[in-house]
Amino acid sequence: MLVTNTVDIRYLTGFRGDDSWLMVLGRTAIVISDSRFEEELAVTCPYLPTVMRRGLLIDALEPMVRDRRLRRIGIQAGHTTLRQHDVLVKRLGQRRFKSTVDWLLDQRTVKDDQELRHIRRAIRIQQEAYEVVVGELKTGVTERAVAARLDHLMREMGADGPSFETIVAFDANSSLPHAVPGDTKLCRGGLVLFDFGAKVEGYCSDLTRVVSRGRMAPKLREIYLIVLAAQHAAISAIRPGVRMKDVDAAARRIIDDAGYGEQFGHGLGHGIGLEIHEEPSLSPRGKGKLAPGHVVTVEPGIYLPGVGGIRIEDDVLVTATGRRVLSSLPRDLDSAII
Amino acid sequence: MLVTNTVDIRYLTGFRGDDSWLMVLGRTAIVISDSRFEEELAVTCPYLPTVMRRGLLIDALEPMVRDRRLRRIGIQAGHTTLRQHDVLVKRLGQRRFKSTVDWLLDQRTVKDDQELRHIRRAIRIQQEAYEVVVGELKTGVTERAVAARLDHLMREMGADGPSFETIVAFDANSSLPHAVPGDTKLCRGGLVLFDFGAKVEGYCSDLTRVVSRGRMAPKLREIYLIVLAAQHAAISAIRPGVRMKDVDAAARRIIDDAGYGEQFGHGLGHGIGLEIHEEPSLSPRGKGKLAPGHVVTVEPGIYLPGVGGIRIEDDVLVTATGRRVLSSLPRDLDSAII
Repeated sequence: MLVTNTVDIRYLTGFRGDDSWLMVLGRTAIVISDSRFEEELAVTCPYLPTVMRRGLLIDALEPMVRDRRLRRIGIQAGHTTLRQHDVLVKRLGQRRFKSTVDWLLDQRTVKDDQELRHIRRAIRIQQEAYEVVVGELKTGVTERAVAARLDHLMREMGADGPSFETIVAFDANSSLPHAVPGDTKLCRGGLVLFDFGAKVEGYCSDLTRVVSRGRMAPKLREIYLIVLAAQHAAISAIRPGVRMKDVDAAARRIIDDAGYGEQFGHGLGHGIGLEIHEEPSLSPRGKGKLAPGHVVTVEPGIYLPGVGGIRIEDDVLVTATGRRVLSSLPRDLDSAII
Repeated sequence: MLVTNTVDIRYLTGFRGDDSWLMVLGRTAIVISDSRFEEELAVTCPYLPTVMRRGLLIDALEPMVRDRRLRRIGIQAGHTTLRQHDVLVKRLGQRRFKSTVDWLLDQRTVKDDQELRHIRRAIRIQQEAYEVVVGELKTGVTERAVAARLDHLMREMGADGPSFETIVAFDANSSLPHAVPGDTKLCRGGLVLFDFGAKVEGYCSDLTRVVSRGRMAPKLREIYLIVLAAQHAAISAIRPGVRMKDVDAAARRIIDDAGYGEQFGHGLGHGIGLEIHEEPSLSPRGKGKLAPGHVVTVEPGIYLPGVGGIRIEDDVLVTATGRRVLSSLPRDLDSAII
C-alpha cells in the first residue's frame, strides 16, 4: 500500500514532514523522504527504514518496487491525483496499481486514549483563551485584532497553533458561516461570533459561541433559542449505532419547524482529529452509524443576511453507552449576554 | 474547463471559499458552491453566476453539463483525485473529460502590479516584525514563544497571518531545514534561525535569517560565509531567459567546491504567490527559464547535524533586464552577530 496522504503518514508513524510517501509492506513500512527531513525522521520514527531520495519520489519508489517484485500496490483514491497516477503507471505499469477507498478512515475516526488526551487538551486551551478574550472585549477593537489575540494566547498556553483560520465576526458579519476577520470595529451593544480551535500534537478542537454586549435584538434572541434547542436535541440523539443522518435530522427538524430550514444551509457537524474536518459527517447525506470513540462537532446555525447569524458548536465524544460533551463553555442565552 | 483547485479559483475570481468548483465556459464562468459562501460570493464576485448546491458538487455539475450539452471538459490533472475522477466519469461519461496540465500555472507565475504590491507589503510587514522580535530576544525564551510573538506582530501589522508555519530554531535545532518550534530555551550566545513569512490578501512572503547572540563558533562562521557567497552568486545569475537549473547550479557549485555539497540537500528556491511553494522551481531538476514577473526565493543552506544549520533566504523579482531583490534585511556576517 502506497500512502500518499501526509496526514495518514503522520497518523501511522508520527512523522510530520510533507513531500514524502510511506510504502506499507505487510509487517514493515518504508518512508521515502529527502534530506530536509532526515534528522526529524531519525528522532520521530527511528524504528522505520527510510529512503532519502535525491530525485523525484517516483525515482526512489521504482527500484524499491522492482527489487521487491511487488506485483500489487494499493493507492489512495482520495489522495492520489491524476498526474501522480500517470507517473506511477508510466514507470511501473497500469496493472500493478489498485485504487482503494481510504482503508485508514475507519481507524482514524475512532480515537484512542492518547488521541483523546490531545483533543481534550486542545479544548481546554481554547476555552481558557476564549474566556480571557471575552473578558477583554472593548468598543473599537477590530475582528482581526481579536482573532490575532486568540491565536496568540492559544500558542502561549501551549497549543501548536489554531486548528484552522480563526473566525471572529461582528454584528451582521456573523451571518457568513465562513467569515474572514477584517477591519470591522466592535460597537457598544455589538454581537460577536467566535468559531475557532486549538491544535495540540496535531489534534484539533473546534468550538463556536456568539455573545452580545448587552441585550440581544429580539430576532437574534429568537434564533439563539432555536439553535440552542436544535443543538440539545442533536447531542441527546448521539449514541453508538445511531445513523449519522438521524443526528443531523434531530437538529434540522427543530430548525425546520421554526421556519428557518432555509437559513441552516450546512451539515450539522463533522469528525475532528488530525484534520479539522474528517469523517464521520453528520449531515443529511452522512453515511454509516456512530461508534464509540468517534469525536464529532455539533454545530447547528441560522443565518439572516444583513441581521446576523447564530451558531453554537461543541465537541462530543461517542462513548460505549452514550455520549460525553468534551467542551464546557456555557451556552445558555443568559451567559451569551456579556 | 472545470477548475477544482481552490487557489486557482481564488486567482481567477477573488473568491476565498473552499468546497467549491469553477466551471469556465468560454467567455463566462459559473461558481458551484453552497449556502455557507452565498453572501461572500455576492460581495467578492457579484458579476459571476453562481449555483448553490444542496447536494454534492457533482449533483450541481451534472445538469449544468447536460443542459449546455458540453461535450469536452478539461480537468486539472494535478488537482483532481482518482476518486473525484471516478465520480465525474460515472455520472457524465469517460469521453467527456480531458485531463490537462495546469494551464493556469504559466499565468500564475508571472505577477502583475497588484500581486507585486501584495507581496511587497507582506515582505515589509514580516521585516518589521522580525526587527522587533530580534530586538526582544532574551535568555530563557522558548522557540515556541518567539514564533508566537512573530505571528502575532505580523497580524497586528495588518497581515492575514503567517504564510506557513513559522520556523524558529535554536542552536543545533537549526540543522533541521523544517524544524518545528518547541520548548527549547535560548541560551546566552545561542544561535537562532528564523524562516517565516507573512500573507497579505492571500499573497505570501518567505525569508530566512540566522543570528548569533555573540560570537559565532568558527565552523558556523565558515558555513555562513559559504552560504552567503552561494546566495550572492545565485542572485547575480537571475535574469530573464536563464534556465532555472542554472540558477540553482550557480549556488550549488560554490557549496560543492567548499566541500559541503552533501549538506545542501534541497533545491535553491521556489516561486511565491498565492501559495508559499509554487512554480517555478529553482532546483537541479527545475524545467524552463526565468521570465519577467517571476518572483522566487533564493535560499541555499548548509546543515551540520548536532552543530547547526545556516540558511539565508531572500525574495527576488525577475525584471525586464535583470532582477530586483524585494527583501532588504541585512545578511552580512557582522549583522548576524547581535
